[in-house]
Amino acid sequence: MSGVSCEMITCVTAPVQDSPFLRACRREPVPWTPVWFMRQAGRSLPEYRAARDGMTMLAACTRADVITEITLQPLRRFAVDAAILFSDIVVPLRAVGVDIDIKPGVGPVTAEPFRSEADLARLRDLEPGDVPYVTEAVTSLVRELGTTPLIGFAGGPFTLASYLIEGGPSKSHDRTRALMYGNPGLWHALLDRLASITAAFLRVQVSAGVSAVQLFDSWAGAVAPADYRAAVLPHSSRIFAALAGSGVPRIHFGVGTGELLQLLGEAGADVVGVDWRVGLDEAARRVGAGRALQGNLDPAALLAPWPVVEEQVKRVLAQGRVAEGHVFNLGHGVLPETDPGVLARVTDLVHAETVSVRGSDPPEPPDGQKAL
Amino acid sequence: MSGVSCEMITCVTAPVQDSPFLRACRREPVPWTPVWFMRQAGRSLPEYRAARDGMTMLAACTRADVITEITLQPLRRFAVDAAILFSDIVVPLRAVGVDIDIKPGVGPVTAEPFRSEADLARLRDLEPGDVPYVTEAVTSLVRELGTTPLIGFAGGPFTLASYLIEGGPSKSHDRTRALMYGNPGLWHALLDRLASITAAFLRVQVSAGVSAVQLFDSWAGAVAPADYRAAVLPHSSRIFAALAGSGVPRIHFGVGTGELLQLLGEAGADVVGVDWRVGLDEAARRVGAGRALQGNLDPAALLAPWPVVEEQVKRVLAQGRVAEGHVFNLGHGVLPETDPGVLARVTDLVHAETVSVRGSDPPEPPDGQKAL
Repeated sequence: MSGVSCEMITCVTAPVQDSPFLRACRREPVPWTPVWFMRQAGRSLPEYRAARDGMTMLAACTRADVITEITLQPLRRFAVDAAILFSDIVVPLRAVGVDIDIKPGVGPVTAEPFRSEADLARLRDLEPGDVPYVTEAVTSLVRELGTTPLIGFAGGPFTLASYLIEGGPSKSHDRTRALMYGNPGLWHALLDRLASITAAFLRVQVSAGVSAVQLFDSWAGAVAPADYRAAVLPHSSRIFAALAGSGVPRIHFGVGTGELLQLLGEAGADVVGVDWRVGLDEAARRVGAGRALQGNLDPAALLAPWPVVEEQVKRVLAQGRVAEGHVFNLGHGVLPETDPGVLARVTDLVHAETVSVRGSDPPEPPDGQKAL
Repeated sequence: MSGVSCEMITCVTAPVQDSPFLRACRREPVPWTPVWFMRQAGRSLPEYRAARDGMTMLAACTRADVITEITLQPLRRFAVDAAILFSDIVVPLRAVGVDIDIKPGVGPVTAEPFRSEADLARLRDLEPGDVPYVTEAVTSLVRELGTTPLIGFAGGPFTLASYLIEGGPSKSHDRTRALMYGNPGLWHALLDRLASITAAFLRVQVSAGVSAVQLFDSWAGAVAPADYRAAVLPHSSRIFAALAGSGVPRIHFGVGTGELLQLLGEAGADVVGVDWRVGLDEAARRVGAGRALQGNLDPAALLAPWPVVEEQVKRVLAQGRVAEGHVFNLGHGVLPETDPGVLARVTDLVHAETVSVRGSDPPEPPDGQKAL
């Protein structure tokens, strides 16, 4: 647990638990549809580029002060209903000593791709002491954020495996699926190791005070449903199960996972993230009862003139009404060329549209959060 | 029309029309399930690498003798039921003067990405005289192939647009969708130009004698169904409509198009290609009556030990039985590291499995085709 006293936890936690974001995750009535954006803290913000100036991605992700600053930046601009811990999916891998780096303009690359049983030795368990900057940043963020929930962050097992196996980013993850088909023993051993590391990484974040977690299995949509069920789901389930007692909502997201939405939920998610290819009405049908949805405005639509954006936002809200709970978000991360002003307008539009529907007071304007 | 006399057309055409491949495309009874592989002529074959040695992709695609040789290579090894014209989706664009190149290890790149109305002037109509090497290669291939059908080849409008707009290969085609949302006028004008070029390019191939065509809209799966219907389908429909009178079956394929299968058919395809993410039984349900299916073995599965490959092939065949017609193929192109021996075994296995089911004579062994 973090060093925060029980008294502090009580006074901070109760209003956080009552936040629209956590209420939506729990499928409870909300005063307005909560909003956050994947990559809301990122390259679209000039202050992010300034904070990262001359600093590698991994350096930024391993300094508590930088994580804290970058995580808070979007909340000074937008009336978003949640913050998400600034991190990268390779952070826990680096923390256990894997030789993986983030190449600017490319993504995660590893000099020695994983190919054999011998490579498993490169994946030891993660201990809280391996990521002190995460504990420190979460602790300070929870204090700073007050009633705004902080979402924890980790990469999912297929996606982590794909970076290790391909050696870098890949369009279709062919070598990853080849290992999955060709050497199931090694595949399951690898994903088991990755699941242990991921579960430990998320437990560190939950212990330090995050109010929810999102597992980004971004590229899991590369496998067919039957293969996902047999080769990926057991490992994601173990990660979610490791957090079951914590009471924090668990969000599960991947791009191009239209065929997998039901299984993403079955893995143990409370909230299923949906990309822009499947409408939320259809996604609700696929996911089934008992889970909330998150999504799914196409990030590319944010580059269009405002009337187009407005129409798309309203469509997402209309389709999202059939979900038992809806957290408004994009269908993937904010694109670097996005105008932050558009993100602010989208946030306010979602609030205005849904607050009027549900007859409650409007959320606090971003100015109120600028005091953070 | 090609320079072949009517008498020759008659003597060559009748047995081709009766080939298992064309029968399956027309949803007629077949003596065995026909097989071909996307990228069967390609980097997995040492003789392909030899034929391309020191030659750029575009040089190879614009020489009739090289196109002919490379197209025939897989038929000397495998008992596949069709050949596909060796080409690249940028060939017609280059033929009308677009400054687009194929960078080894990267893919199509254009120095000046398409962004404005002014760029439309870079896309003039394609005339048969722009691609004499295609006419010449098809004419010679049809003669060489005898009773084996030759499939024509072109890229689809979304995919061509994405290379022009992104300036090169892209993982998620964000700028392409941004233009689609942000400037529908330019978008439709661009796809209209591309559709005209593509239709003309395919008409050249049909006139020269191809027995079927495949439109590879490889990246169309990047858009949601409603956007596909409004922004892409009208242009693909126009391409297919331009071939409607020719009587050649039209195949329509894209990767990750599970949400779009019905629309790929509606666009005017006789055969819908299915990637590995959706089983053929489910694909048949989505596509509906009146169209055949093609697919859908995961190309990555071919890198696994033979028992795994065998199991996957049998699964595809079992699921494909519900389709009104089934052309066995992969769910995407042959991977460069694939053992050609495995492709030969898969071909023979498909034939053996389905010939026994349908009680006909087995297809001719590849040795018979080595005489080509």
